[in-house]
Amino acid sequence: MIDLVSELERITGTRDVVVGADLRARAASSMNVESHRAIALVRPQSTEELSEIMALCNKRGQAVVIQGGLTGLVDGALAGADELAISLERMNKIESVDAAGRTITAMAGATIQTVQRAASEHDLLFGVDWGARGSATIGGSISANAGGNAVLRYGMMREQVLGLEVVLADGTVMSMMNSLIKNNTGYDLKHLFIGSEGTLGIVTRAVLRLRPTPRSVQTALIAADDFSDVVALLGSLDAGLAGGLSAFEVMWQEHYEMIVKEGGHRRVLPDGYPYYVVIEATGSNAEADAVKFEAALGDAMEAKIIVDAALCSSTSQRQKVWKIREDVDTFMRVLDPPIPFDVSVPIRDMEEYVSKVYADMKSTFPRARGTVFGHLGDNNLHFCWTVGSNAPETVEAVSKVIYSKLTPYVGSVSAEHGIGLAKRKYLKYSRSCEEIEWMKRLKQVFDPDDLLNPGRIFDANCCE
Amino acid sequence: MIDLVSELERITGTRDVVVGADLRARAASSMNVESHRAIALVRPQSTEELSEIMALCNKRGQAVVIQGGLTGLVDGALAGADELAISLERMNKIESVDAAGRTITAMAGATIQTVQRAASEHDLLFGVDWGARGSATIGGSISANAGGNAVLRYGMMREQVLGLEVVLADGTVMSMMNSLIKNNTGYDLKHLFIGSEGTLGIVTRAVLRLRPTPRSVQTALIAADDFSDVVALLGSLDAGLAGGLSAFEVMWQEHYEMIVKEGGHRRVLPDGYPYYVVIEATGSNAEADAVKFEAALGDAMEAKIIVDAALCSSTSQRQKVWKIREDVDTFMRVLDPPIPFDVSVPIRDMEEYVSKVYADMKSTFPRARGTVFGHLGDNNLHFCWTVGSNAPETVEAVSKVIYSKLTPYVGSVSAEHGIGLAKRKYLKYSRSCEEIEWMKRLKQVFDPDDLLNPGRIFDANCCE
Repeated sequence: MIDLVSELERITGTRDVVVGADLRARAASSMNVESHRAIALVRPQSTEELSEIMALCNKRGQAVVIQGGLTGLVDGALAGADELAISLERMNKIESVDAAGRTITAMAGATIQTVQRAASEHDLLFGVDWGARGSATIGGSISANAGGNAVLRYGMMREQVLGLEVVLADGTVMSMMNSLIKNNTGYDLKHLFIGSEGTLGIVTRAVLRLRPTPRSVQTALIAADDFSDVVALLGSLDAGLAGGLSAFEVMWQEHYEMIVKEGGHRRVLPDGYPYYVVIEATGSNAEADAVKFEAALGDAMEAKIIVDAALCSSTSQRQKVWKIREDVDTFMRVLDPPIPFDVSVPIRDMEEYVSKVYADMKSTFPRARGTVFGHLGDNNLHFCWTVGSNAPETVEAVSKVIYSKLTPYVGSVSAEHGIGLAKRKYLKYSRSCEEIEWMKRLKQVFDPDDLLNPGRIFDANCCE
Repeated sequence: MIDLVSELERITGTRDVVVGADLRARAASSMNVESHRAIALVRPQSTEELSEIMALCNKRGQAVVIQGGLTGLVDGALAGADELAISLERMNKIESVDAAGRTITAMAGATIQTVQRAASEHDLLFGVDWGARGSATIGGSISANAGGNAVLRYGMMREQVLGLEVVLADGTVMSMMNSLIKNNTGYDLKHLFIGSEGTLGIVTRAVLRLRPTPRSVQTALIAADDFSDVVALLGSLDAGLAGGLSAFEVMWQEHYEMIVKEGGHRRVLPDGYPYYVVIEATGSNAEADAVKFEAALGDAMEAKIIVDAALCSSTSQRQKVWKIREDVDTFMRVLDPPIPFDVSVPIRDMEEYVSKVYADMKSTFPRARGTVFGHLGDNNLHFCWTVGSNAPETVEAVSKVIYSKLTPYVGSVSAEHGIGLAKRKYLKYSRSCEEIEWMKRLKQVFDPDDLLNPGRIFDANCCE
């Protein structure tokens, strides 16, 4: 049998099959400082080349791991020693922008930023954004159903995808390149591949929705005395701004105080309030939108659901507020070694859930210190804890405290990061055995030899 | 073998198994004046009863047809003589409203209107609406992925569904009752059941998103000289209203003129313009929103993309405009016998597609007369044609003209109505054989004995 590398070289040419020292010099993942362990890494330039590669792997029973920008946080793209890595970095073109239909067609390896820029050339916006925009790819973001900064306004990645092309485990190219908002003609197969972390097929191209570019932005930092007031504020602002609310980011008192003090930020509002919320609305008409925003905040003041507010009247004020909210470095440094979490809970249960986690963490780990903040409008909380160690068994013990408390509220162990290898053993806290059983059956139908990202999301032992 | 009716009666009691004259007295569907042809009709009161019914049908190899409000337009719920009808009319409760999380949990047989009313008791809105709101059910609307009046603003039914419970062909109850906006924990199985017209499982309960109730509405009828101006107007208004645009309904000249003349409507704008567009925006602040709306229309006037405009300053003016747009009776009466269509085409290809259809219709059918209007912002056009006959072979010949011209533009033979039995033979104009083959495989996995709505969407001969 001819060796795998020679066969791959025949498909892509030698330059796009990376092995040996070249391969070991590449990062294995964003989270991982080890060198690449894959058998080899191949970089197809087209759907056709990728199709040939998968036909070959299917024939040889060769497992593969699909790699985009390596910005995932759950080790989904971390290749094992017996796996072939397939990087889509050379399939990175924007194919077309349809300004009238407000869609963009991109290859899977294009970055979020590349798509954003191509859209902005037509005075349009791609509604997905987060810090890693320059590395994260369209294909990876679709496979992970990425979230980010604008979910409240535009939805997750799934909501942006109109059409998809995938390569299946046997090399078949499946085209579902729809560009229509409305198309009720049988099963909408693309949803199987969105959010399934590359385990059912390899995303190669997509048709994505674009939005009008906002022309105005209003930002404020407010303080509230009670969690119920925070919830009431969300409802009140969402109604008062008619869908224009684009951020509703809550920081619990100790989070705000720690960031401001340890991060050396200017206090936009004084310490001592139980909750701080960054509010932002985007619109189309600076004057009319300012009237609306101030009226909505005025209503909230009058209803006594907010106790203090700082409206940002300049870009620099706006940046100061966001720097507090986005200062990840400070809490990761103070809470050393940090154990971060990304969970979802229904808003009505959030306060109870958080206080149960705090109580249990403090009683289980005497040295525990944590903070909490999150995208409240999306049900999404981020915890960061430190307990004096981040040895695997400690991380597991902390994870069990955080995740097991989600089950009574039907919460999620992964709001936006996915499962990958890292959260596989916690999947059962959020999904029933019935559901996992059906995931396995679908995997069996689409990838009977378990070649695509094997073991990601679930393994054979899940729920057994 | 005990007969089916006795076994059903053992599950639901005799009152909820309808047979004989009682059954024949019931409507077979909204489209069909024939009497009910099913073996029997059973009305479970709970998921548990439905589960028992399906376990029984699975054992007996008994095919079933699921019925909601019978408002579908593609004969999807029309029972055959060898099928058991299952009506979800008794599973019609609203289970709960979570005002903080802005979700509602409803049983599948609840009507759209029941859900709307329950939401409005909490000053919230359910974002799906159309004429048949009093009959159409949540379960049917999810199975059909219904569209309606508010797609531009809130999306299709799929975008409203957070969680789902279904009963599978063998009676298994599969719960996916998520209520979270963000939940990336493995495959999002609910999307398989949304829009698959009851062929993979029976929707029994759902968690649906609610929205803030708009507090202001702005409406105008405008006229444009060119299709390119209509397209430019959509882009300009969507940007100028920052997502507040809730309707963009285009009427081609002959449609507007026919409706106004034959329907006896007041001319809101004079005859003679090539295009008329109903524009509506909803918001939260009547004063600020009026400023925005007038500024956005002013910009369009200045850019010369609109040539005439009537702003509605009262509810009665608003109703007059909508009465023209929604006057289905007039064109169905004038274009007698009518052959209606519901298609999608990319906006950039719409003008060319429409003129090709007109040219071909006029040359193929000497007596052809048609009109066209539609939800342009959603890519969705509605045609109505008359050619002097609506005999099945004539309808088929007209359908082939309309649908075959969609293929080069990757258009859709069904924007919002679905496929059912009525459009099955045209599925191939919108979906590839590859895609249809995968639909069949999924059907085989979920319903190996073809018991659930058999033959809807596709049959064994599709693409063979």
